[in-house]
Amino acid sequence: MAFRTDIEIARAAKKKPIQEIGAALGIPPEHLLPYGHDKAKVGQGFIDGLKDRPDGKLVLVTAVNPTPAGEGKTTTTVGLGDGLNRIGRNAVVCIREASLGPNFGMKGGAAGGGLAQVVPMEDMNLHFTGDFHAITSAHSLLAAMIDNHIYWGNELDIDIRRVVWRRVVDMNDRALRQITASLGGVANGFPRETGFDITVASEVMAILCLARDLKDLEERLGAMIVAYRRDKTPVYCRDIGAEGAMTVLLKDAMQPNLVQTLENNPAFVHGGPFANIAHGCNSVIATKTALKLADFVVTEAGFGADLGAEKFMNIKCRKAGIAPSVVVVVATVRAMKMNGGVARADLGAENVEAVKAGCANLGRHIENVKGFGVPVVVAINHFVTDTDAEVQAVKDYVEGQDAEAVLSRHWELGSEGSAPLAEAVARLADADTAQFATLYPDAMGLADKIETIATRIYRADGVVLDGKLRAQLKDWEDQGYGDLPVCMAKTQYSFTTDPTLRGAPTGFTIPVREVRLSAGAGFVVAICGEIMTMPGLPKAPAAQSIRLNAAGEIEGLF
Amino acid sequence: MAFRTDIEIARAAKKKPIQEIGAALGIPPEHLLPYGHDKAKVGQGFIDGLKDRPDGKLVLVTAVNPTPAGEGKTTTTVGLGDGLNRIGRNAVVCIREASLGPNFGMKGGAAGGGLAQVVPMEDMNLHFTGDFHAITSAHSLLAAMIDNHIYWGNELDIDIRRVVWRRVVDMNDRALRQITASLGGVANGFPRETGFDITVASEVMAILCLARDLKDLEERLGAMIVAYRRDKTPVYCRDIGAEGAMTVLLKDAMQPNLVQTLENNPAFVHGGPFANIAHGCNSVIATKTALKLADFVVTEAGFGADLGAEKFMNIKCRKAGIAPSVVVVVATVRAMKMNGGVARADLGAENVEAVKAGCANLGRHIENVKGFGVPVVVAINHFVTDTDAEVQAVKDYVEGQDAEAVLSRHWELGSEGSAPLAEAVARLADADTAQFATLYPDAMGLADKIETIATRIYRADGVVLDGKLRAQLKDWEDQGYGDLPVCMAKTQYSFTTDPTLRGAPTGFTIPVREVRLSAGAGFVVAICGEIMTMPGLPKAPAAQSIRLNAAGEIEGLF
Repeated sequence: MAFRTDIEIARAAKKKPIQEIGAALGIPPEHLLPYGHDKAKVGQGFIDGLKDRPDGKLVLVTAVNPTPAGEGKTTTTVGLGDGLNRIGRNAVVCIREASLGPNFGMKGGAAGGGLAQVVPMEDMNLHFTGDFHAITSAHSLLAAMIDNHIYWGNELDIDIRRVVWRRVVDMNDRALRQITASLGGVANGFPRETGFDITVASEVMAILCLARDLKDLEERLGAMIVAYRRDKTPVYCRDIGAEGAMTVLLKDAMQPNLVQTLENNPAFVHGGPFANIAHGCNSVIATKTALKLADFVVTEAGFGADLGAEKFMNIKCRKAGIAPSVVVVVATVRAMKMNGGVARADLGAENVEAVKAGCANLGRHIENVKGFGVPVVVAINHFVTDTDAEVQAVKDYVEGQDAEAVLSRHWELGSEGSAPLAEAVARLADADTAQFATLYPDAMGLADKIETIATRIYRADGVVLDGKLRAQLKDWEDQGYGDLPVCMAKTQYSFTTDPTLRGAPTGFTIPVREVRLSAGAGFVVAICGEIMTMPGLPKAPAAQSIRLNAAGEIEGLF
Repeated sequence: MAFRTDIEIARAAKKKPIQEIGAALGIPPEHLLPYGHDKAKVGQGFIDGLKDRPDGKLVLVTAVNPTPAGEGKTTTTVGLGDGLNRIGRNAVVCIREASLGPNFGMKGGAAGGGLAQVVPMEDMNLHFTGDFHAITSAHSLLAAMIDNHIYWGNELDIDIRRVVWRRVVDMNDRALRQITASLGGVANGFPRETGFDITVASEVMAILCLARDLKDLEERLGAMIVAYRRDKTPVYCRDIGAEGAMTVLLKDAMQPNLVQTLENNPAFVHGGPFANIAHGCNSVIATKTALKLADFVVTEAGFGADLGAEKFMNIKCRKAGIAPSVVVVVATVRAMKMNGGVARADLGAENVEAVKAGCANLGRHIENVKGFGVPVVVAINHFVTDTDAEVQAVKDYVEGQDAEAVLSRHWELGSEGSAPLAEAVARLADADTAQFATLYPDAMGLADKIETIATRIYRADGVVLDGKLRAQLKDWEDQGYGDLPVCMAKTQYSFTTDPTLRGAPTGFTIPVREVRLSAGAGFVVAICGEIMTMPGLPKAPAAQSIRLNAAGEIEGLF
């Protein structure tokens, strides 16, 4: 087979009409709201009717700490879904939507890769079904209403220095990170400092992905803290009266998007919150709907297992009342080499010793996942440069951890290549050994929750949490927020807060720089290190090469 | 019949699947890109195949100067379309899309009213098919790329005080009218003043509505002036390299949206540029596509005939190579009364003398339209409070102007009520008497074009255009922009620049405050008076009452 790029493969896909994909799941066409011929939203009426059905089994795909070598978590998620369908298990894939803005900086992301992709890839990297635009609109409406409230007399007595609701745009626009607004005199309001984040960083996004239904969505939106008064008491979104209109703007965005894999299997692609200041998972409504429609639901979480799987378990599963039957940890020989100290330029050469050394990173993730009471399979996402000896080294290591590693060749072969992984996952799921438990109870204090994650998951010696932050956490406990889970914002490249420390470091502490309350989403964010909520564009942005060619095809986006 | 609101009527509509509406126009389902079951975009491939078909007849609906009494221009456009279909003439309605932001200030606008509406009304007042979001994205990308260019070294030598490309958001957000951006130090760029307009004010919107096809769109986007250097030479969008990616973002937005009237007749709802700093008409691509598919295309222009019809003729028709066969001037008894000096509170009482006095406004519009060589019908949009004597007064006046006035009761009765208007329009169109001519030739100087519109259309004694502005216009002529038409930005409430002067004032001049070059859209804007490009929200915005009720219906939006 001649080498084909992801986009060439995606364009050559023999897509079925989306109504056929829906019909295979038992969704009648009148409950599928089409967006073109290959995308559709699933109607709320249909979802409501599923309540009494039993749930299928949930499989989480997570990974070792990401390295520049790439792990292929989404690719493996898609490949596993196709593999399960191939071996006769009905499976639905649930992944996140892509953010528009970053595609114009670096080249756009595929949804998967090789023969394990979700299509239509171009739409998914552009406006898709408009969900993120709806989130931007809802967020912007609240922002406008806050300043409008201040403009017309500020009855709520908002301290204009303490408006915490920023604005958002789905674009990499560093010039908007920090601005002074309401300039220009009396007609334009009271000047104050504020700024823009990228849309995926909006609390509205996190809420959309955690809300059970539209009623829950509206309540959560209303509970968001948008500002503080001089006496430090919070002003909520519901005080501004925006939550109803925001819900109206989000009513379609709340419905899961149905698309298909290259092998015409169903995929829900819905929601996409940041994986640092938010929980980084696709929507609860998509996952729960999929669980009603299929025997297996394969989903993924952001970053490595230390961040993504931890939040998936402690935030999403806890709040949604769901639990994984099996967790797949994706590793690659290349990533093990980099964790073992090999530079990116040297990844081409066989280096079994480095692979073995790097497996310590994988081992810690396996142990962590098992700590949640869920059985683990390691998927070795195959690269054509991997040698047999290197693959065997990973397999041997994993066996030593009392788990199984399966080489998976979905990128190259599609479901034919992932069938062995699917068999292993199905076998473990059928055995029904999972005894899911969150890492900490709701009732644990907020500071202790942070400490528990740092010491039990990252294996830090402790956290550095100064008196001011402890007092803030205590205040929130007194205000009734003590039951919330904690959302850690930390570098994804290391168990520590230092992105250069690969492998399985020990002897470090986790300094917490700031804590934030996402009262609507329902978690407390602990920020450990620099977190960028508005990316910039590179010197030569991809946008300069993106255009329609004479055939009407998009060039330069991928 | 018990009184029903527009939204109640719209919700009770017996909509046909959009594929059926398309089929009636000869559009096969594979060329209709559905957005839900009742909206679709028409594929470019289908449009390309229409080239050699003959055009139907174009009917422009315009109006007297708007008054708080309401004229019902869109309602008449929709009613006339239904009326033509009722009398056996295939007709398509072409109107503009609604802007999202303003709906959260005042109550949202219907698309028409009573029994003359286009549906689905709720979607059309919310995200619809995402066109305006795409325009916001394209505009935002260019804005981010300009500041990014400056950040990375400013090779183009942009004078950061002279960046004329502002940002946009589709929300009424006065706090963003004037801002200082790029604050926060080295990582965020070079601080400079800028601000946001509402999306419909974007030049991208005007271009989308004037472009022939995607290739023309890309060229026009590239030709936009985004900044000036210290030596005053312009920096174009193409210098930044954004036009290709912007075109990719706009490729779906360029396709006309097909929906239907309450009577299941086809309507294209596409584009919606400002009617002051832009030309205020639906897209050229929708109008031209409709002309290939139907015997009659009924479309409207923004504001009264002094602004809307003038721009329709001198900008849209000139550039698109189309011409109206008939113009309908909408008048109401109530509007005539207000033009005749009656206060809004006194509109309920019969006042034939005031009607007669107010007809001077109507008369000037009739004369102006005839000046373009096109026959005129006056549609008296019937209100239930109108008395027979008042209606007769309008009819008599119009007869004295050598034109026909037809009472139209589409609001109350649908096409049954508009059939007489449709008959009158069809009769005039069949007579083929139109000899369309623009008001001025391309070759006329820019200052003379402004003067010509002011004296011939507004009937001013002249324009006040100071030396600096004349020099600016001269510069643009020297740079090759002299052939462009002029786009007047003036109050819509009067022939003058004073919104309180109703009727047919004389003895005034038109002061021009500012001139702007929309080099991509292809017109020079002459700004006469205050023009607001970013509205604010009122003290109690409609958004505070908008919510989903228990039945899942939207409350408070209408």
